[in-house]
Amino acid sequence: MTKGRQWVLVKPYDGLPKRTDLELQKFEIPDLKDGEMLIAAEALSVDPYMRYWGSALKKGDTIMGQIVARVVKSNNPGFKAGDRVSAFTGWVSHAVVSSHTSSDFVDLLNHFPVTKIPDSLKDYPPSLSLGVLGMPGLTAYFGILRVGKLKPKDTVFVNAAAGAVGSLVGQIAKIKYNRCTCKTTKQGCKVIGSTGSDEKVKYLTEELGFDAAFNYKVVTHDKLSETLSKLAPDGIDVFFENVGGEASSVVYKHLNKNGRVAVCGSISNYNCPEDAMPKVTEFIQHLFYKSIQIQGFIVLEFMSEFEGALKEMAGWMQEGKLKYREHVHKGFDKMFDAFMDLFAGNNIGKVVVTV
Amino acid sequence: MTKGRQWVLVKPYDGLPKRTDLELQKFEIPDLKDGEMLIAAEALSVDPYMRYWGSALKKGDTIMGQIVARVVKSNNPGFKAGDRVSAFTGWVSHAVVSSHTSSDFVDLLNHFPVTKIPDSLKDYPPSLSLGVLGMPGLTAYFGILRVGKLKPKDTVFVNAAAGAVGSLVGQIAKIKYNRCTCKTTKQGCKVIGSTGSDEKVKYLTEELGFDAAFNYKVVTHDKLSETLSKLAPDGIDVFFENVGGEASSVVYKHLNKNGRVAVCGSISNYNCPEDAMPKVTEFIQHLFYKSIQIQGFIVLEFMSEFEGALKEMAGWMQEGKLKYREHVHKGFDKMFDAFMDLFAGNNIGKVVVTV
Repeated sequence: MTKGRQWVLVKPYDGLPKRTDLELQKFEIPDLKDGEMLIAAEALSVDPYMRYWGSALKKGDTIMGQIVARVVKSNNPGFKAGDRVSAFTGWVSHAVVSSHTSSDFVDLLNHFPVTKIPDSLKDYPPSLSLGVLGMPGLTAYFGILRVGKLKPKDTVFVNAAAGAVGSLVGQIAKIKYNRCTCKTTKQGCKVIGSTGSDEKVKYLTEELGFDAAFNYKVVTHDKLSETLSKLAPDGIDVFFENVGGEASSVVYKHLNKNGRVAVCGSISNYNCPEDAMPKVTEFIQHLFYKSIQIQGFIVLEFMSEFEGALKEMAGWMQEGKLKYREHVHKGFDKMFDAFMDLFAGNNIGKVVVTV
Repeated sequence: MTKGRQWVLVKPYDGLPKRTDLELQKFEIPDLKDGEMLIAAEALSVDPYMRYWGSALKKGDTIMGQIVARVVKSNNPGFKAGDRVSAFTGWVSHAVVSSHTSSDFVDLLNHFPVTKIPDSLKDYPPSLSLGVLGMPGLTAYFGILRVGKLKPKDTVFVNAAAGAVGSLVGQIAKIKYNRCTCKTTKQGCKVIGSTGSDEKVKYLTEELGFDAAFNYKVVTHDKLSETLSKLAPDGIDVFFENVGGEASSVVYKHLNKNGRVAVCGSISNYNCPEDAMPKVTEFIQHLFYKSIQIQGFIVLEFMSEFEGALKEMAGWMQEGKLKYREHVHKGFDKMFDAFMDLFAGNNIGKVVVTV
């Protein structure tokens, strides 16, 4: 019987995950029942949410996550061997799935089907379906346009701006409202990003077209207000929030009337137990007199519209408007190292593991 | 020439306002120009926002606020002597106004017209137009129904629940979705309030029909989570936020998926300078995975719909469904004492000063 490999939690996380919390185990791949298929991972996604939702994992659970895989063998009439699919199997080399994946720990993922990678994306590397043409891309797209309700001339501030999601948020804002018909940037959106190194600042402003960016390790939160006053003298209309923490409390002060905050994540506190969250400066007093809206979201809410969004994003890529980078680790045994790279902030763009 | 009296800021607030920060001054009432009228205050409103926006007052400014007044003399074709009006004149005994009041310190108030008290309210005491049939009533109405997007079976949590706004929020929720056709409370909304004394707890549950209430001086924020788990075992759908602070961070944890937070105010920190806001436990991690929406609002956003709302509220009062209390101070010279009563939490319901 063929063997697969999987990453399993053996000790619930306490703070930053440790290598000894996980084990790379072999498992026997069961025979296919009717409607099932065997898939083999080509690329695996590594995302911050795996730490957040990882708190819900029990000992013996497979680490959650999305993969892009080839169908090896199929008893499902909708799929044939050779098809490329995306699935929420977790960190596995192989999996037997039906058209829906079952996930015990996150109810939302139960509704996430195994989907064929659309034909329109077949010429792109499979890993892109985990990044710019996958969840992070869709999160950026729906987050800034739908949750952030982006309008022409908005000033956008995004943190973790060189990450898989943030790097796309800023570009999408500029693509949507920086058309040549507008002639000048003043008619389009202004995008400001914060990130963790000078190299990333350069990447954002010189390669991705952000109007401004700064290194939050230099512009610490005590200096942030002054910096935002300079970079966004007319205030911020949309705050795309990936990080949380004290710096975010400062950003609220700079929001304009009817400002919108799209809360995508809070990576700064994922390694902190829920009962020991840090304290941050109260910002509620900025909300009512400026009629500010804060909306938390998960991209799966927009699932019925994924196809159109991916088509639009792929179009932008073909026109050279939407750029991306991948931070690739090679080998299924590198999953943990790739995961740790995220929290160390070593990546520019999407972190993936290719098999 | 006739003299009027007004309360003027002589020293900008630092923390809790002091009696010496204000002066009760006489002023000469000018002659009426075309389109103007002289009004004499019958009742004056005292509200928490006067402290919040009070930070924007400069030395020599009249304290802001709404009054109900009689027209004494009119050169404005829309009003005649004897008409009862509401106006945003600030803390004054008399004022010369045109149909719009001018307010230098709060742009929003510039758009607030001098309005006749509708005929349908003429049998109610004038002070009610500052409370249950005025701004606080409308704030509760639009805040819970429109901003909080109240639905049948929602569990509502409101703080400062025995105040001018909170006491109405809970009642409106119960009136809207606790119809006799529903037979049982389980089909209607469940309303939980927090307030500052056992007497107020009794008022909320025994007189106003709240399902549960507790004294936040006994159930301090370290005990709040346990209490909310008991009182709202199925979680909270709408959090009507008047207070802010550490307790609110705990409430976020108890919000359900698609929970809504209507941010009306944050009285706990109005006496705190903006650059020295307290620190509260980070709650952002509860927002994205539960798709929670937080919306700050000011009732003036709904001005075009005030009339219909007041009619509905007056109807509920006539049917004995909507109850209210006033905490009345007599005499224009009592404005400061009335203001301080608010921050001491001495009031049940709306604080007004009658002249």
